[in-house]
Amino acid sequence: MHEFKYKNTQLYCENVLVGKLAKTFGTPLYVYSYHTLIGHYLKLKAAFSQINPLICYSVKANSNLSILKALITNGAGLDIVSGGELFRALKVGCPAKRIVYASVGKTEAEISTAIAKGILFFNVESLPELRSIDRIAGSLGKITRVAIRINPDVEVKTHKFITTGKITNKFGIDLNNAYKILLLRAKFKNVKICGLHIHIGSQITESAPFVSGIKKVSAFIKKLELKGIRLEYLNIGGGLGIIYDNETPQTAQVYADEIIPLLKSTGLKIIMEPGRFIAGNAGILITKVLYIKNTPKKKFIIVDAGMNDLIRPALYGAYHNILPLRKISKSEKADVVGPICESGDFLAKERMVANVKEGDYLAVMSTGAYGFSMSSNYNSRLRAAEVMVSEDKVQVIRKRETYADLIRNEFAK
Amino acid sequence: MHEFKYKNTQLYCENVLVGKLAKTFGTPLYVYSYHTLIGHYLKLKAAFSQINPLICYSVKANSNLSILKALITNGAGLDIVSGGELFRALKVGCPAKRIVYASVGKTEAEISTAIAKGILFFNVESLPELRSIDRIAGSLGKITRVAIRINPDVEVKTHKFITTGKITNKFGIDLNNAYKILLLRAKFKNVKICGLHIHIGSQITESAPFVSGIKKVSAFIKKLELKGIRLEYLNIGGGLGIIYDNETPQTAQVYADEIIPLLKSTGLKIIMEPGRFIAGNAGILITKVLYIKNTPKKKFIIVDAGMNDLIRPALYGAYHNILPLRKISKSEKADVVGPICESGDFLAKERMVANVKEGDYLAVMSTGAYGFSMSSNYNSRLRAAEVMVSEDKVQVIRKRETYADLIRNEFAK
Repeated sequence: MHEFKYKNTQLYCENVLVGKLAKTFGTPLYVYSYHTLIGHYLKLKAAFSQINPLICYSVKANSNLSILKALITNGAGLDIVSGGELFRALKVGCPAKRIVYASVGKTEAEISTAIAKGILFFNVESLPELRSIDRIAGSLGKITRVAIRINPDVEVKTHKFITTGKITNKFGIDLNNAYKILLLRAKFKNVKICGLHIHIGSQITESAPFVSGIKKVSAFIKKLELKGIRLEYLNIGGGLGIIYDNETPQTAQVYADEIIPLLKSTGLKIIMEPGRFIAGNAGILITKVLYIKNTPKKKFIIVDAGMNDLIRPALYGAYHNILPLRKISKSEKADVVGPICESGDFLAKERMVANVKEGDYLAVMSTGAYGFSMSSNYNSRLRAAEVMVSEDKVQVIRKRETYADLIRNEFAK
Repeated sequence: MHEFKYKNTQLYCENVLVGKLAKTFGTPLYVYSYHTLIGHYLKLKAAFSQINPLICYSVKANSNLSILKALITNGAGLDIVSGGELFRALKVGCPAKRIVYASVGKTEAEISTAIAKGILFFNVESLPELRSIDRIAGSLGKITRVAIRINPDVEVKTHKFITTGKITNKFGIDLNNAYKILLLRAKFKNVKICGLHIHIGSQITESAPFVSGIKKVSAFIKKLELKGIRLEYLNIGGGLGIIYDNETPQTAQVYADEIIPLLKSTGLKIIMEPGRFIAGNAGILITKVLYIKNTPKKKFIIVDAGMNDLIRPALYGAYHNILPLRKISKSEKADVVGPICESGDFLAKERMVANVKEGDYLAVMSTGAYGFSMSSNYNSRLRAAEVMVSEDKVQVIRKRETYADLIRNEFAK
């Protein structure tokens, strides 16, 4: 569900004509719907209201300050993965006790700052990392809290780059080793192990792997309890899939109904880390048609957004629906491609696309997550502007870059 | 050939100890060798000295201002693909008459600026683009020059994302349609068609497809001459492969010997657009080992450089050699992975890697091209610093980003 809809023949974001945004702010342009964003957060919150989890939005999905601020104002916490994301979280006033920090490669400086700021806990990915955190906390004279990230070795149907709960992945600690660490927890004098964390992957559309992962971790919690080890938190990660094409992902309510009984039985406070589920369908990328190129073999719709703006099609083979801002009855098979000088620069291949003309605009749907946050300056292209729409109100939440930005840190020596 | 070599057990860039650069400037860090960079340019120039081509370095490979300045000071021109690259070219004082401009998606503003600045010519990729250039030149009261990019429909063994000379690609114009355009050239009153352009792909290690492409275009030039159409330039593009692993690409000399006779017979002034060939082996990415993680199935070497710093392994399945800065006799099979929260974030998989310890440094070799230029702030990570080494001299050519840079254009509304 999202608030990008045609009224008569024109695409609107909430009450605002998207075509007007394109003309006012130029393209490529990311447009977000405030009510879609917050709506998804509230839907998840409502589905889980019985157990009142702390919903920590996964900053990496879309880290724009205004997106973060909107969510924390509505009660969300934040799931961060770097010092840069911690900086953003604090910048928008997120209470430190609503921040959890995951990453297999936390640096000494990052750990140190996060301890000093008093985040809720670290999700710890390896024994060497646990040792580092213990040592750094000791040197700061603090006791810091951690959750052990368990790798539950669960099979998930998603792109191989975003499955994270298999034992051959770099993430988490296998159950045997996690058990040993917990038995030896007294060795880590400056660390309190307060919970467990699992995160099995991203864009998962069925509940079976979640259930399977949670069952494994529940059994593990019972095993720990038999040893007198009581925890406080279970962090069940994110990974909830959304609709890009014709997927039929479980709704928040179905997901909740399936796992709440399991979660309740642990007796632990629950933390969730949704990113794509909240932001994915809350954003679209607007691009202008530069040229219609008919070749002997194919029709190419050449647009002004490239793989530097949205890398998901090239990197993950991801599907994004592409709609004209002004409804057109006829469509034709075409490749929608960007201006970048490589064949990997495409938004759609061999797709029925509305019969647009040069100068028309297209909306690349469901690009609110892993869109702008993965964008680059490849081909010395300026990163797009971002605007947030709430009912009739439009706010620029990130200015388009300028050529001066490109070379800001460079020297011609 | 490059100037990153072990002296005793330590890796040097020219006369500078790379380990010292890592300590001084921090990691991840791109380190370039000035003499390797210029050496490759001069090698190509020497190989083709008989026909004295204009060698236009392909800016997209590595667009750092200091890299561009070093090359143009040594006589190179520049091959650009965007307004941002034009800005960079002019910033370092590249004479406009040494700039050629290719891209399937040039915008009106970009075309207009390039005409106003008086670049040598546009490589035109489609009939609608030719019409646009004609119209814009007319509105500026100028006659501008273009080369028609021919799609020669040549098969090339390289990654599908970087093959560009097949008829199913978005690039160039097929021979039949190019012929029609040239016959009708008088219709484009503000454009002088002064040449042809071909570019069949990237990282091509054998000369056969180049020879095949040039033969096709040579025959086409003869056909045009029969119609009284005389051109001035033949732009043969880039695409020369380099050694990443165990490739044995043709040397500049072998390549030159194969194609010079063909080029001479055209009687045209030759332009070349090498990028990777010049910059690829002239740069390395230095990264620090954060954690050694042994799991039941695998050893992971977790480093502080991620797919945001170097996306080639994830995007193209690219191979980069990984060497310790301090030689270590023993090695072990491992995955070298970054700190980013997805399984696609790796630098090497199942590779024999030196037995490094936490705190040691690794060099990811041959990352001078399509390394920094494709980097992003994904996971709110700061983009790396870049340094240039020339003999004993070290210059920072791009400062490491700061957290303030991350949010410079954002607003928390």
